[in-house]
Amino acid sequence: MEPGFKTQLAECHVGVIGLGLMGGSIALALNGACRSISGYDIDPDAVGQALDRGIIRRPIELRGDEVDLLILAAPVSAILEWLDRVPRVFSGEFHLLDLGSTKTAIVERMRLLPDRISPLGGHPMCGKETSGLNAADGDLYRGCLFVLTPLERTQPGTLDIAQELTAALHARSRTLDSQQHDRATAAISHLPYLISTTLVDAVMQLDADDAWALAASGFRDTSRLAASDVTMLLDVLKSNRGEVLHALESAQLSLQETIELIERADWPELRAKLSAVRDKRIWWEETQRVTNSE
Amino acid sequence: MEPGFKTQLAECHVGVIGLGLMGGSIALALNGACRSISGYDIDPDAVGQALDRGIIRRPIELRGDEVDLLILAAPVSAILEWLDRVPRVFSGEFHLLDLGSTKTAIVERMRLLPDRISPLGGHPMCGKETSGLNAADGDLYRGCLFVLTPLERTQPGTLDIAQELTAALHARSRTLDSQQHDRATAAISHLPYLISTTLVDAVMQLDADDAWALAASGFRDTSRLAASDVTMLLDVLKSNRGEVLHALESAQLSLQETIELIERADWPELRAKLSAVRDKRIWWEETQRVTNSE
Repeated sequence: MEPGFKTQLAECHVGVIGLGLMGGSIALALNGACRSISGYDIDPDAVGQALDRGIIRRPIELRGDEVDLLILAAPVSAILEWLDRVPRVFSGEFHLLDLGSTKTAIVERMRLLPDRISPLGGHPMCGKETSGLNAADGDLYRGCLFVLTPLERTQPGTLDIAQELTAALHARSRTLDSQQHDRATAAISHLPYLISTTLVDAVMQLDADDAWALAASGFRDTSRLAASDVTMLLDVLKSNRGEVLHALESAQLSLQETIELIERADWPELRAKLSAVRDKRIWWEETQRVTNSE
Repeated sequence: MEPGFKTQLAECHVGVIGLGLMGGSIALALNGACRSISGYDIDPDAVGQALDRGIIRRPIELRGDEVDLLILAAPVSAILEWLDRVPRVFSGEFHLLDLGSTKTAIVERMRLLPDRISPLGGHPMCGKETSGLNAADGDLYRGCLFVLTPLERTQPGTLDIAQELTAALHARSRTLDSQQHDRATAAISHLPYLISTTLVDAVMQLDADDAWALAASGFRDTSRLAASDVTMLLDVLKSNRGEVLHALESAQLSLQETIELIERADWPELRAKLSAVRDKRIWWEETQRVTNSE
C-alpha cells in the first residue's frame, strides 16, 4: 500500500475488528463504498462465515497487517484491549474509528496511540436485541444518529472520512465531547435499560402468577430492553459507572416522589407531575419526527 | 322490545356508554354482529359524529331507554357513577358489561344493581396512546386478551353473550377473579406506566440537554407509556391504589438493589440479576408467541 493517511473512503482498505451485529452490518453497508474490507473476530467461525458470505474479502493478519481505516466494532472492554494491541498488529499510517457505547474511557486510551494512528471516537445510536453476524443487516445504520467524539489529536482528514462513512451508512452524524456523550447516553440509553430490568424484576418478585398471561403491548415495550445482551451492557455500565449512578439516583428520587404522592393520595400533585412528563414525552416524539423528515 | 334476557348477541340491541377510543372501536367491531347499536357520550359532538359515520344507529335516551346489552366504555370513575344511574336510565332486563381498567371497585358497585340487570366485569387488555372517537378502530381488539370478571350473581347467559362478543371482536377471553385481575394489572400495566414516567422525569431532572437529541429506539419504547392519557391513568391509580403501591415498592427495592450493586462494583452479582431478568423476559416473549399462534 502507498504510505500516508488516505483522504477519501473510496481509497481505503478498511479493517473491521469484531464481526458481530455492528461490525458485520457496517461491513455490509460499506461494500462498494471503500476499496476492500478485511475482518477479524475472536470466533474463527464468524470470520469463515463473513468470508463465505462475501462480507469481507480477507481475514486480518494479527502481525504486520495494513489498513487505511480501522474500525473497532466490539464491546467497550474489548475495544480498550484492542487499543493496546493495535500498534503491534497494524503498521503504517491509518485512521481509527471505534463503535463503542461509551466514549470517555476509550478516548482516554486513544490518547496513548502513536502519532501514525489518527483516532476518532464513534457511537452509532442503533442496535437490535439480537446479536451476532447472523443478525447483521446493511440497513442497520440507516437513519440512525452516529455520534463522533474527536480528540484534540484527531486529524481533520479522519473526521472527513468518518463523515463519508456515516453518509455511506445513511446515518446522521453529530459531533460531541466524550463526557457530554457519556452523560447523555447514561440518561437515554443506560437508564432505560436498567429501568426496563427493574420492571421485569419487580414483576418477578411480586406474587402474581396471572400477571405474565395478562401482560400486553405496554409491558412489552417498557420491558423490551431487559432482553438486551447482558455482557455488552455490563461493559457499558462498568465504563460509565459514575454517570449511570447519577442517572439511577435521579430515577430513584422520582420513583420515591411518585410513591409518596400515591400514599398521600395527593392526586392534584400527581396529575401535575404526570402531565408535565406526558408533555415532555410528546414534545420529544415531535422533535424526532421533525429530525427524521429533514 | 320483548321482555327477558336475550340469549344471543345477534338478538341484542346494544347500548354503548362512552364513544371514545374503546367504545367507538367496540361499536365499529360489533356492527353486523348484533341487532342494533345505540350510543351516548358526555360530549354531544361525539354522538353526532358517531351517528354521521354510522357507528351507532341512534342516541341513547337518558330516561326509559331500552337495551339488551349495555356496555360501559368509560374511565373507571365514570363507570362507577354510571352504575348508580343505569337503573334509572334503562328499563327492563338486560346484560351489563363494563370495559374499565380496574375491576374490584367496579364489581363491588355492580353487586348493588337490581336483579333485572345481570352485570359482568370486563377488561380488554389493549389500547392506544391516542384517545377519542377519531382514533376508534374496528380492529383494535383483534388478538387482544379480554379479561372477564364474573360476580356470583352474573347469569350464565351473560357470560355466554360476552364470549360471543369477544369472539366477534377477534379477542381471546379469560375469566379471572377481580382481585387477581387488579393485582396482575398493577404489575404489568400500571407499574409499566409509572416506570415509564419515572424514566422521562429522571431525564428531565438530569442536566443533560444533549440527551433528548441522542434518544433513540430504546428510549422511545421504554418511555412510550409516559404519553398515555393522564386522566384515564389517574382514575386507574386511584381505584387500584393498594396494589399499585405494592408493585411500586417492589420496583423501588429492585432499583435500590441495582444501585447498590453498581456502587459496590459487584459485577458478578449484577450479571446474575440482569441475566435472570433477561431469561424471564425472553421466556415471556416466547409464551406470547405461542399464545398468539394458537
